[in-house]
Amino acid sequence: MRGTGKADIFVMLAHPVGHAKSPGIFNRIFEEKGLDSLMVPLSCRPEDFDVFWDGLTAAENIRGVIISVPYKTRVFEKCAAAHDRAARVRSANSVRRQADGSWYADNFDGVGFMDGLAAGGHQVRGKRILQVGAGGAGASLAYCLAEAGAAEIRLADVDRDRAQALADLVAAAYPACRIAVGAADPSGMDMAINATPMGLKPTDPLPMDTAALTPDMTVVDIIMEPAETPLLREAARIGCRIQPGRPMMDFQTEAMARFFDIERKDRTDG
Amino acid sequence: MRGTGKADIFVMLAHPVGHAKSPGIFNRIFEEKGLDSLMVPLSCRPEDFDVFWDGLTAAENIRGVIISVPYKTRVFEKCAAAHDRAARVRSANSVRRQADGSWYADNFDGVGFMDGLAAGGHQVRGKRILQVGAGGAGASLAYCLAEAGAAEIRLADVDRDRAQALADLVAAAYPACRIAVGAADPSGMDMAINATPMGLKPTDPLPMDTAALTPDMTVVDIIMEPAETPLLREAARIGCRIQPGRPMMDFQTEAMARFFDIERKDRTDG
Repeated sequence: MRGTGKADIFVMLAHPVGHAKSPGIFNRIFEEKGLDSLMVPLSCRPEDFDVFWDGLTAAENIRGVIISVPYKTRVFEKCAAAHDRAARVRSANSVRRQADGSWYADNFDGVGFMDGLAAGGHQVRGKRILQVGAGGAGASLAYCLAEAGAAEIRLADVDRDRAQALADLVAAAYPACRIAVGAADPSGMDMAINATPMGLKPTDPLPMDTAALTPDMTVVDIIMEPAETPLLREAARIGCRIQPGRPMMDFQTEAMARFFDIERKDRTDG
Repeated sequence: MRGTGKADIFVMLAHPVGHAKSPGIFNRIFEEKGLDSLMVPLSCRPEDFDVFWDGLTAAENIRGVIISVPYKTRVFEKCAAAHDRAARVRSANSVRRQADGSWYADNFDGVGFMDGLAAGGHQVRGKRILQVGAGGAGASLAYCLAEAGAAEIRLADVDRDRAQALADLVAAAYPACRIAVGAADPSGMDMAINATPMGLKPTDPLPMDTAALTPDMTVVDIIMEPAETPLLREAARIGCRIQPGRPMMDFQTEAMARFFDIERKDRTDG
């Protein structure tokens, strides 16, 4: 029976939280593994976030939290310690309780993305890459692409200042990667990545100039639903190799399950 | 699938919470009814209660809370409105969200107890009753017994002042019931009720003087585990009619499910 008084409690925080996939995914995993654990979707208004977070921290049997829009930065700022891949983007998508009750932050956006690319057979080392989107997830991706040996990154974002700030940070961390802000144009690139929300809604414009795609390119979308975005459909029509968003989520889930050590059971009471 | 992002969230609060039965009972009900809802056991230290409660209130998709020891009075004090049966004992064992986000308190300790007695075929009207225990649950029981037409209540508690205060309140509310503080001695009574925690542990002393029990008496225990307490075992040996604690819990659960309107589903997002 899942969800007794002795259950280990994990929270998935977002605003709104209704469309979040992680609660259902994790509760199914708990069920399949026969674990007495719950992943609880919770939401609070941005103006109530500090009060909400203090209360959540006071709940002594909450072991971990998965964080999504718009709270990744605010939660990161609440943490006492963090993995470098969360600290460099000042963004937490997973936090777990430390022995003293404080929180340790990590961020698996980039990890899940890179594991998904590798599983799909897509190489990053030595490649020239267009990345559209320099927001929360985009920041993690750019660092990971540079870290994995991308030769060049062209970074496009509607907010050019945000793109430039990210490019400067990544360049400082990984000088071997040529990274520069540019247009959402894949010309001359080996790979084109959409790291924006464009494509979630059927009425969204395409995130990049698909007229410049050629069959030798690989096109990647981080959007999970729909599985085939208009960008991926167009890329497939042109003959590009494509990589959808779902594997990123699946590999993130695996990384989070390890991070939370979900099969650990060492409390005797709560 | 129970526990998606759209799940209605209910909390069971106690300290400690590990031994609480309600989370498992409600999660099983949700599962059997095919509801996408979770009953989440949570615990906080008494010194953190105010911070915890403010945070819980800020979580906009938490619809209701079941409260147990030691927080029934502190939660009652946080509520904007209450049913009279919670207000008269200043104790909430269930609260639900009102439209403006504030909390409405109720208390089903007495209701569940009385429904359990009725289902067991035990009459209260016109009876002389020994009640041992004038604490949280005991206060609800005394009011309900007087309300149901008990002719006389002898109220015994290790804390005589607490017993006297409760007797005075119940006498003021139900003048037709003769209620007085006395010894834990069932002599001359029709019914003897244990409303203390004595009997939870095998080493506990008996809550009342069982030498004075006679076969015409009914003996009631609110303790649910063990199902047969030393008091009930001794009463059965003497030939008394007995009533165990489990039905009180079952009828409380039914009352709470109605109070929370658990099958309602009117949110489109959280």
